[in-house]
Amino acid sequence: MGSLYTDVTEINPAFPLNPLDPEEFRRQGHMVIDFLANYYREVDKYPVRSQVEPGYLRKCVPESAPNQPESIETILKDVQSHIVPGITHWQSPNYFAYFPSSGSTAGFLGEMLSTGFNIVGFNWMSSPAATELESIVMDWLGNMLKLPQSFLFSGGGGGVLQGTTCEAILCTLTAARDKMLDKIGRDQIGKLVVYGSDQTHCALQKAAQIAGINPANFRAVQTFKSDSFGLSPVELKKHVEADIAAGLVPLFLCATVGTTSSTSVDFLPGLCKVATEHGIWVHVDEAYAGSACICPEFRYFIDGVEDADSFSFNAHKWFFTTLDCCCLWVKNPNSLVRALSTNPEYLRNKATESKQVVDYKDWQIALSRRFRLLKLWLVLRSYGVANLRNFLRSHVRMAKVFEGLISLDTRFEVVVPRYFATVCFRLVYSSDEIDGGDEVDGINNEINKRLLEMINASGKIYMTHAVIGGIYVIRFAVGATLTEEFHVRDAWKVVQHHANLLLSQIKD
Amino acid sequence: MGSLYTDVTEINPAFPLNPLDPEEFRRQGHMVIDFLANYYREVDKYPVRSQVEPGYLRKCVPESAPNQPESIETILKDVQSHIVPGITHWQSPNYFAYFPSSGSTAGFLGEMLSTGFNIVGFNWMSSPAATELESIVMDWLGNMLKLPQSFLFSGGGGGVLQGTTCEAILCTLTAARDKMLDKIGRDQIGKLVVYGSDQTHCALQKAAQIAGINPANFRAVQTFKSDSFGLSPVELKKHVEADIAAGLVPLFLCATVGTTSSTSVDFLPGLCKVATEHGIWVHVDEAYAGSACICPEFRYFIDGVEDADSFSFNAHKWFFTTLDCCCLWVKNPNSLVRALSTNPEYLRNKATESKQVVDYKDWQIALSRRFRLLKLWLVLRSYGVANLRNFLRSHVRMAKVFEGLISLDTRFEVVVPRYFATVCFRLVYSSDEIDGGDEVDGINNEINKRLLEMINASGKIYMTHAVIGGIYVIRFAVGATLTEEFHVRDAWKVVQHHANLLLSQIKD
Repeated sequence: MGSLYTDVTEINPAFPLNPLDPEEFRRQGHMVIDFLANYYREVDKYPVRSQVEPGYLRKCVPESAPNQPESIETILKDVQSHIVPGITHWQSPNYFAYFPSSGSTAGFLGEMLSTGFNIVGFNWMSSPAATELESIVMDWLGNMLKLPQSFLFSGGGGGVLQGTTCEAILCTLTAARDKMLDKIGRDQIGKLVVYGSDQTHCALQKAAQIAGINPANFRAVQTFKSDSFGLSPVELKKHVEADIAAGLVPLFLCATVGTTSSTSVDFLPGLCKVATEHGIWVHVDEAYAGSACICPEFRYFIDGVEDADSFSFNAHKWFFTTLDCCCLWVKNPNSLVRALSTNPEYLRNKATESKQVVDYKDWQIALSRRFRLLKLWLVLRSYGVANLRNFLRSHVRMAKVFEGLISLDTRFEVVVPRYFATVCFRLVYSSDEIDGGDEVDGINNEINKRLLEMINASGKIYMTHAVIGGIYVIRFAVGATLTEEFHVRDAWKVVQHHANLLLSQIKD
Repeated sequence: MGSLYTDVTEINPAFPLNPLDPEEFRRQGHMVIDFLANYYREVDKYPVRSQVEPGYLRKCVPESAPNQPESIETILKDVQSHIVPGITHWQSPNYFAYFPSSGSTAGFLGEMLSTGFNIVGFNWMSSPAATELESIVMDWLGNMLKLPQSFLFSGGGGGVLQGTTCEAILCTLTAARDKMLDKIGRDQIGKLVVYGSDQTHCALQKAAQIAGINPANFRAVQTFKSDSFGLSPVELKKHVEADIAAGLVPLFLCATVGTTSSTSVDFLPGLCKVATEHGIWVHVDEAYAGSACICPEFRYFIDGVEDADSFSFNAHKWFFTTLDCCCLWVKNPNSLVRALSTNPEYLRNKATESKQVVDYKDWQIALSRRFRLLKLWLVLRSYGVANLRNFLRSHVRMAKVFEGLISLDTRFEVVVPRYFATVCFRLVYSSDEIDGGDEVDGINNEINKRLLEMINASGKIYMTHAVIGGIYVIRFAVGATLTEEFHVRDAWKVVQHHANLLLSQIKD
């Protein structure tokens, strides 16, 4: 057998098994399931943000890999004593930072099955089920979002799972770039311009960097409070026209519904109109808010998507699937395939040559791909569409509860409109000694920064910040799967408690 | 609570739980562990290559997502009856195709823990343990490979996990590109040239496409049988000098140890010498063969790596960790960070500003990252270095057994030297009616293609092919974790049986 133990001088008789022995797999697998079930039961007791200092782990682990095997019991003890304290507990019900990563039992089980089968699904032939389930379920999900037929396989477009939004944007940007360069010539790459707003996720800037767009041709168009920090079509148009006048070539716009800083919303219909007039590829990034659009009452946020070229959201953010699982739809899969395909001899096969199948390796950066779709399939089937909607609604409702609590305490304000389950707020310190204007904002920014650090250092809840229009805001993002309404009410008490402390310190 | 069931009209009383309820997680988790343990016990009984036809799955699944939840029992029944037949069984002991994906219990458990914690580890702050364990264990592994200190954190370099080699190459190529463009000017991107051989994995071509290298400036330098299909420094030098003479700028060389087609080996010391003279970044791709280099007797294959700039291998190929897990080391992490970093306000934090920590988001394409290192850690600790070496040796030994069996049957030949655990062979049909030369090869290519298809269609074993120097070869890659020597001996009988059948058909 493929035994581990052929060199008798190195044999450790305590571990004589094949590394994939089914019964040992079963024994150890059950142990890890119990470990994780206990972790979820206890997770609310850990400090949410890890309290360790840089370099803590080097003191706990040996300087080199062990020569002899160690038991799973020993390893799990080390996970508990050395790793768990260094983890920020994204699954804690008291986690309200960034955007939560909404794990679920179904998402976890889907990942287990995917990992267990451990196929490398670069093309149809390498595991037909992986490709076919992905195409089918991406159409399911597209229909749940009421995406236009042109984005679905059934309408000539198609959906594909990427790891993250960064990859989705890089792939679509590369497709748009090559389509344009085919038209204007390869040597014109230095003239291509990419557009987002000052609220767009840094994934766009990074994708543009990687794709070889000249950094001088990256436009983070300014947004304004009067537009609720959404990108204005008028501003976009100004930039596009100026670029054309300067001899540049507008290429790609990333419009966002639910930005990372404040969940602000770009106005798709107006932006698509400007873009279409100038042949600009429009990608709609709904990394966070896309999930909510399966609820009829939120669907209007993506009105206008029918004039975009591609659309993505992260099922690992607010849709029960564990990281990583980004859903991308494109109207014109051929443009992806043209930019990303390779066809080496060792992957040639009858199915590909028959042109009856999708080979997803040509829709993404990497050649290899996991059977990621299983987790999305398990989530959809285990919970059902009706419950998924209600779950998202329950998060929105909890965010409204938090908003209501803020409004009862006149020392605080909600800084930008809340659209989904994220509230941006701050403590407003109006000392008589301050004249007003920028100076007030500066002082308030400093106070809120200190307040947030005090709260996070307590370990009781974890929130993060953003700076929007010069104002430092604290973000309260509901979405961790275990969060219940009492966690939200308790979180507000934690905020108030630390605000009291801070304000009394300032007055002293 | 974050209940699923707030809209009473849609309540299904059978599923009243939070989607991350610990006890339900435990119950369902144990079921899936048993499902997978049984799968491994039975996997040798399934046809290795899936026997389904394109479109098979659409007949088995509904047209839209279910509105109401379904039980895990129902879903697992569907996995068994609809998904398993559409899977090509990469974990089967009779799997000898491409390069196997060597799953293991430890690799699986590491992925479970990673998925269970479900952290989003973009920077140190988001979960210190993830970053610190990665830095420590990448140094462990670098030491196991006897990489020069300059590639390790302890020597000023550093290691990072990527998903796949495609990503590792794209990141290093982007770093090399930006370093060069900083020197010669952004507008010179059209002059940059990328080098590989005609045996280099298509990942290089794809990375060059994505990074905006002009396709006309991609060099797949020809290799020759006399060099055992390794890239010759003399050939590289010729191309580099011609490019310089044409006003182009040599940028990046991907040298491979263990190519995908035939596991051929590029001669690193000579190639690095040529590259160094011209300021070319050298990436060493050991996607497959890197694992073997933890054995002292194989280490010489990477002699010369000390003059390269970056080095990667896939732990998900032949190192027990499930897909995806590519290990990348670079001598100059700053060049990665310069090319790939973004620094949005919402990610700013004290730890980053202290410059005492690594933020891995700036070493890769995506911002988000899983705690992938756990699976590598579990593999190293569960099996230990000594056993890992012996496991790899047992695969090499089985490949030698297969080679020996081929040599006993004069109808077959081994086409290129076997270095690791992959044998490239073919049936040689020398009919008296053929004159010789290209025509013989043409006929033999056709015969071997038919032979391979017959064998794979039987479902008993699965192998794939390559074309090397115009010769169609069948690749027999040992590496699936469950494979034992009797599987290899049985596989040879399957090959002989179908060769007998085919030759008797031809003679008739």
